[in-house]
Amino acid sequence: MAGNSDRQGQSVTSRAFALLGAFDVAHPRLTLTDMARRAGLPVATAHRLAAELEAWRALDRDVDGCYRIGLRLWEAGLLAPVSSRLREIALPFLQDLYEANRENVHLAVRDGFDTLYVEKLAGHRSVPILSRIGARLPLHATGVGKALLAHAEPAFVQAYCERPLPRCTRYTIAERGRLLRELSLTRERGWAQTSEEMSLGSCSVAVPVFDDAGGAPTAALAFVIHTNRADLAKLVPALTSAAAGIASRLAEAREADAS
Amino acid sequence: MAGNSDRQGQSVTSRAFALLGAFDVAHPRLTLTDMARRAGLPVATAHRLAAELEAWRALDRDVDGCYRIGLRLWEAGLLAPVSSRLREIALPFLQDLYEANRENVHLAVRDGFDTLYVEKLAGHRSVPILSRIGARLPLHATGVGKALLAHAEPAFVQAYCERPLPRCTRYTIAERGRLLRELSLTRERGWAQTSEEMSLGSCSVAVPVFDDAGGAPTAALAFVIHTNRADLAKLVPALTSAAAGIASRLAEAREADAS
Repeated sequence: MAGNSDRQGQSVTSRAFALLGAFDVAHPRLTLTDMARRAGLPVATAHRLAAELEAWRALDRDVDGCYRIGLRLWEAGLLAPVSSRLREIALPFLQDLYEANRENVHLAVRDGFDTLYVEKLAGHRSVPILSRIGARLPLHATGVGKALLAHAEPAFVQAYCERPLPRCTRYTIAERGRLLRELSLTRERGWAQTSEEMSLGSCSVAVPVFDDAGGAPTAALAFVIHTNRADLAKLVPALTSAAAGIASRLAEAREADAS
Repeated sequence: MAGNSDRQGQSVTSRAFALLGAFDVAHPRLTLTDMARRAGLPVATAHRLAAELEAWRALDRDVDGCYRIGLRLWEAGLLAPVSSRLREIALPFLQDLYEANRENVHLAVRDGFDTLYVEKLAGHRSVPILSRIGARLPLHATGVGKALLAHAEPAFVQAYCERPLPRCTRYTIAERGRLLRELSLTRERGWAQTSEEMSLGSCSVAVPVFDDAGGAPTAALAFVIHTNRADLAKLVPALTSAAAGIASRLAEAREADAS
């Protein structure tokens, strides 16, 4: 690391990425000062690094001088497997699900203790929902999350349940014993459901996507619908069939990598 | 830049981004050696920087040690306005267009001399197409590209036409005079079309999205359909109405930024 560190003992690369990490959904546009403060860097350092990030278009600037995440970073990010592989393979299946039912369709993966949303299809008639692409929500409060958690390694489930379980609505299952019973039921039944556990007025039904034998699911698929339209079990066969289609395409792609 | 450069005279930040730039659609997975070679860096330098990029999850590693663009880079990229603003605002409109017509729906912007695809909705029944999110195609050979080019600044159009115009199929309009007449017709008619100019067997109809008075279009919307289903003019009113809806939401978002 010689020549690659400054007085703060932080590498140049990690400081450049600290600037990128200053942006989030609540802060998609930042002045230089705010960006430096959120990244924990002196303004002069932030200014110099921002110029380099701007040259690569990892950052772009608005006409008023505010910084935003740049176009080239978006393009590079699309090459991550979650987008270039999972999302690309799943999209026509999601589209068919949407077309047949006209309800919100979600695709999510597990990352750490979070449900991470990879795709979300919605029309103007769908129930408004909290998730957007890239959103993170608690596993135990979402349908996709329960489908992922129900089939995770037992040690992971234990670690998850030992942490405080946030209560998103008054219907969220936030007691450890109840959650474990719910996960067990989810495994037996083959699909997960929620009823106003993440947002009042909406419920969901979800299935896991397995792309290899025996492991944890790669992803989960869900419909999220108005509570008063809820006939969740009726939506399961379409989800199961889409999940099988996606799983088989993912397995093909993995074999192509290996060869 | 003191302390921020190495013997090659390139900053640490630009070398770290050179590693990210080593990945593209044809190379989404790279060994350390290939990544170093494509980035023009010594393997030892690449190895050290890759470890830092991996720590931030700008890179992730497969079980076999190959590198891929990482999950956090994908998450950061989603905050770029093209995704967090344009794509998010446009999606329900695109979804409604898809739902009503069941044909490929595209959303694109102009970046440099390229059509850059921001979203593409397709079901299993849609005609297979070349574009994917993040793809870049020539402006003069695509419907969205012609819609963007027809309303670009005259100096830009001139610069575009002075470069060689690649011929993607035998129907691509690759003569300057013919292209200028086509753009003029596109402006008068209010919509662009292509017929097998990018891919044999498919044609497209596109309209620009203007979100402020007088400027160049922010984006363009298109249907891409089988040539033998082509009744392009019939698809224009739905596109125009979606473009107006998107434009009005974009203008609202811009006003919210300014206030």
